[in-house]
Amino acid sequence: MSPSTIGSQTLDLHQAIAIGNPKAIDLWLDVVDDPRLRSDQLTDLTPAEVVRLGELMPVAVAADVMDTLDLHVVVDALRVIPTPRAAAVLDALESDRAAEILRELTPAEREPLVAAIPAEHAAVLRGLLTWPDESAAAHMVPEVLTVGGTVTAAEAIRQVREHSAKMRQDAHIGAYVFSVDDERRLHGVVSFRELVLADADTPVAHLVESDVITVGPLTDQEEAARVVVAHRLLAIPVVDDDGRLLGVLTSDDANDIAQEEATEDAELQGGSQPLEIPYLRASPFLLWRKRIIWLLVLFVAAAYTGTVMQAFEDELEAVVVLAFFIPLLIGTGGNTGTQITTTLIRAMSTDNVRLRDVGRVLRKEMATGALVAAAMAAAGLLRAWTLGVGGPVMVTVSVALVAIVLWSSLIASVIPLLLKKLRVDPAVVSGPMISTIVDGTGLIIYFTTAKLLLPELAGL
Amino acid sequence: MSPSTIGSQTLDLHQAIAIGNPKAIDLWLDVVDDPRLRSDQLTDLTPAEVVRLGELMPVAVAADVMDTLDLHVVVDALRVIPTPRAAAVLDALESDRAAEILRELTPAEREPLVAAIPAEHAAVLRGLLTWPDESAAAHMVPEVLTVGGTVTAAEAIRQVREHSAKMRQDAHIGAYVFSVDDERRLHGVVSFRELVLADADTPVAHLVESDVITVGPLTDQEEAARVVVAHRLLAIPVVDDDGRLLGVLTSDDANDIAQEEATEDAELQGGSQPLEIPYLRASPFLLWRKRIIWLLVLFVAAAYTGTVMQAFEDELEAVVVLAFFIPLLIGTGGNTGTQITTTLIRAMSTDNVRLRDVGRVLRKEMATGALVAAAMAAAGLLRAWTLGVGGPVMVTVSVALVAIVLWSSLIASVIPLLLKKLRVDPAVVSGPMISTIVDGTGLIIYFTTAKLLLPELAGL
Repeated sequence: MSPSTIGSQTLDLHQAIAIGNPKAIDLWLDVVDDPRLRSDQLTDLTPAEVVRLGELMPVAVAADVMDTLDLHVVVDALRVIPTPRAAAVLDALESDRAAEILRELTPAEREPLVAAIPAEHAAVLRGLLTWPDESAAAHMVPEVLTVGGTVTAAEAIRQVREHSAKMRQDAHIGAYVFSVDDERRLHGVVSFRELVLADADTPVAHLVESDVITVGPLTDQEEAARVVVAHRLLAIPVVDDDGRLLGVLTSDDANDIAQEEATEDAELQGGSQPLEIPYLRASPFLLWRKRIIWLLVLFVAAAYTGTVMQAFEDELEAVVVLAFFIPLLIGTGGNTGTQITTTLIRAMSTDNVRLRDVGRVLRKEMATGALVAAAMAAAGLLRAWTLGVGGPVMVTVSVALVAIVLWSSLIASVIPLLLKKLRVDPAVVSGPMISTIVDGTGLIIYFTTAKLLLPELAGL
Repeated sequence: MSPSTIGSQTLDLHQAIAIGNPKAIDLWLDVVDDPRLRSDQLTDLTPAEVVRLGELMPVAVAADVMDTLDLHVVVDALRVIPTPRAAAVLDALESDRAAEILRELTPAEREPLVAAIPAEHAAVLRGLLTWPDESAAAHMVPEVLTVGGTVTAAEAIRQVREHSAKMRQDAHIGAYVFSVDDERRLHGVVSFRELVLADADTPVAHLVESDVITVGPLTDQEEAARVVVAHRLLAIPVVDDDGRLLGVLTSDDANDIAQEEATEDAELQGGSQPLEIPYLRASPFLLWRKRIIWLLVLFVAAAYTGTVMQAFEDELEAVVVLAFFIPLLIGTGGNTGTQITTTLIRAMSTDNVRLRDVGRVLRKEMATGALVAAAMAAAGLLRAWTLGVGGPVMVTVSVALVAIVLWSSLIASVIPLLLKKLRVDPAVVSGPMISTIVDGTGLIIYFTTAKLLLPELAGL
């Protein structure tokens, strides 16, 4: 049972550090077992408190705790902890986590830390750091359990036992054992449980599954994560062009990558650039920088709505009631488009819609658009009637709504697919962008409809 | 290595079924190893072809394949396959997956299938189906590896070996072994690897971690999934009020739940109701139903913009150029608000922002809003100048932009937090909703500013 369900949560970290006894820290870890709450309390510490905490916690415990904390909290802590201790903690962490932390540091901060890590592990970390940030290899665990392809189950277990003594603990890694040849070329995979439960003298070659799904080291991290999730794997081997096993990408990392991607997409969809750090850690200035670019781009793009209005100034002056419906019409166009792009882009980023589905998407969206247009035309007619603007304007509003909804449906379905075709991330098509595009074109549709339908505008 | 990297992908499923030899299906599975492509090709089959495929595939292979296919494709297939065979496949699947499939069927379709499954497993499945859809228990695997707390490592392995013979295969489940007492109360957990690698006569009690993080059966599935992800677990035990172990929720299910939640949030954020089925399977009528409700609600809400405009009709007639800036001003207000709600709601749904952070959020957003307002005021001044509308209107546009941006920032930060406080899912605050709220209030701000600043409106 989680101790949090029975313990009180009144001990805070300041207090635990002030007591100055490792048992107080131990108690705090028992009482506060939610990684998020731990990260929060760590963020509140002074540098002196962080250093003291580093001294009070055994290295193995610190590594264990840091494994689930917010990455940026860990990085901040390691910046103030004395180098030898910080290096010891990094050494005790999984290599993929240690490399992730080191990537967040500047080269000047990173070098002394890596230099203080035992040479063999430091070399592994340096190796991981050479892969590009977005590659599968950058996130892999290089230490995997391997056995020769020609051994028996009993011999394989003996080899695993030997490897394990040297290996960092991780249930994800231990779940699979890989069979490789002398040059570390991957031949197959067997679950550790199957290996143990098999008869001792069964050749490993009979136990392994040789149809192994793999990714290359330079496979995009998001693509690799999608494969792990789609096949419900605990880990996927990363294999170079010659078939050599470089490491594994584990399911928890794949999970993190998928979650980060969803967050990035959500931020893009809302019309800002991805923050790349947790929201609460972002300063107002950073938020401003991530948001203002798109706001200004959209402002400039939307500025043409003024030009459109100016072009129809005479019509507006002749029938000023036309202005009453402007926010309603362009709002509906924007809403229709936003509904489509968000659904479509999420379906694309979860691989449920691909480029070759373009025909199905367009047919589906235009049919839906026709149904939506019919309903909105009725609503528009009703609203115009309640404002008492007279028959011709009522019809104008209704007809314009139909045209705007259909136009918006077309634009909103085509643009994401087009961007995908051009290899641009479709998630940049935000709701605000679609609204902006539809605002101006919607006005043109509206005033053109009015000119065609209203007798008093016929001469203008 | 993945065969897809060396094989050609020219064999399609129609062809493989027409050949009518199980080896052709085997070959197809080798060539088409992407679950998404498999789902696509299965969707294209006629019912007769699905039945034939069911005959050509050994039950174990079918279960293995179905584990990663799109849920709805699996359900459709099981609807046409004869009951005895469909029941055999369900029996061979993991219980959580089988229950997930059975949940999609109507009771009339479900009952004969469950009745055809061997009694012991059928009882397990019926047990799972009694839990509410959204609960952790509905998604758990009830078959877990357990050992008594007083045994040695060697005896524990013997017990596991015995259990395993009866158990369905899943590396996720096998990763952990749980120590329980005679009444199945959970005492601790040990990884299978640690158990095997320990000395044979070590008591299991010395090996287990007794600080186990657990969830209750009625814990919301999303909450349970978040705990699995936050703690990077392979599986979390589901434990009843008396501490009895009911099953485990595995990380791949937690992953699925998190992904579904992200999809639902994205759809809500785009201003429509969640589809709940894959986009390509949704008919235009279903899409219409999911979208039209919010469109109409927003239309009614936006209709008051017409009332606002009507109220300021005299001002508009006196200074018609004011109308030029309406789409630009309300668009900017909507964009500013959408940026905030999407970032904030994503941070809330990933547990990075909680209710108690309300003060920090508001301070951050109002400071950011001030920076954004300053930049947009400058942009507005410039745009008004290029349209040649004269000094007073220029100042009006600029001042109104500042007020609208600040107002929108406040509304967009407060509403999601308020909804969270009221225990309503904040994700319902879509970009379209914020835009609609800001549209009308933005107009009031704009015209009020104009009345205060433009001499020609002073008398109205």
